[in-house]
Amino acid sequence: MKKIMIHITLKEGVLDPQGKAVQGSLNTLGYDAVQEVRVGKYMELFVEESADIEQQIEDMCAKLLANPVIENYQYTVEEGVTQ
Amino acid sequence: MKKIMIHITLKEGVLDPQGKAVQGSLNTLGYDAVQEVRVGKYMELFVEESADIEQQIEDMCAKLLANPVIENYQYTVEEGVTQ
Repeated sequence: MKKIMIHITLKEGVLDPQGKAVQGSLNTLGYDAVQEVRVGKYMELFVEESADIEQQIEDMCAKLLANPVIENYQYTVEEGVTQ
Repeated sequence: MKKIMIHITLKEGVLDPQGKAVQGSLNTLGYDAVQEVRVGKYMELFVEESADIEQQIEDMCAKLLANPVIENYQYTVEEGVTQ
């Protein structure tokens, strides 16, 4: 089994209202040192070990998992994972 | 500026309907090798360099950012980040 770890984050300059809300809450709770929060997504995909999926990941991210207009994505692949 | 990267994932055994939906969509698009998808959150916190925030991160995660009943969290700290 291969494990693909995908990070999807908003591009720089794109407004992040969810992050702003989290930052506001943290500040209200007394964590004043927190200057900015950006919220993204993290996905773990488990795919068949034999599958030559690496070339398809880029495709999956661009087509379905991320919105390339406003989001960046990065991924790492871990092989030989037992689920 | 310190950058704190937090990964929040559902605990093993906790149902992940969002992940199931993503997996279904990927399979429908022809990516049949994808066996399971787990969706989590990824947050980046930017905090003041001088702040001794490390001890507070655990607290922030448990109190606000994650739900410790059903979610696990992990974090890494990167120092000297220019935003």
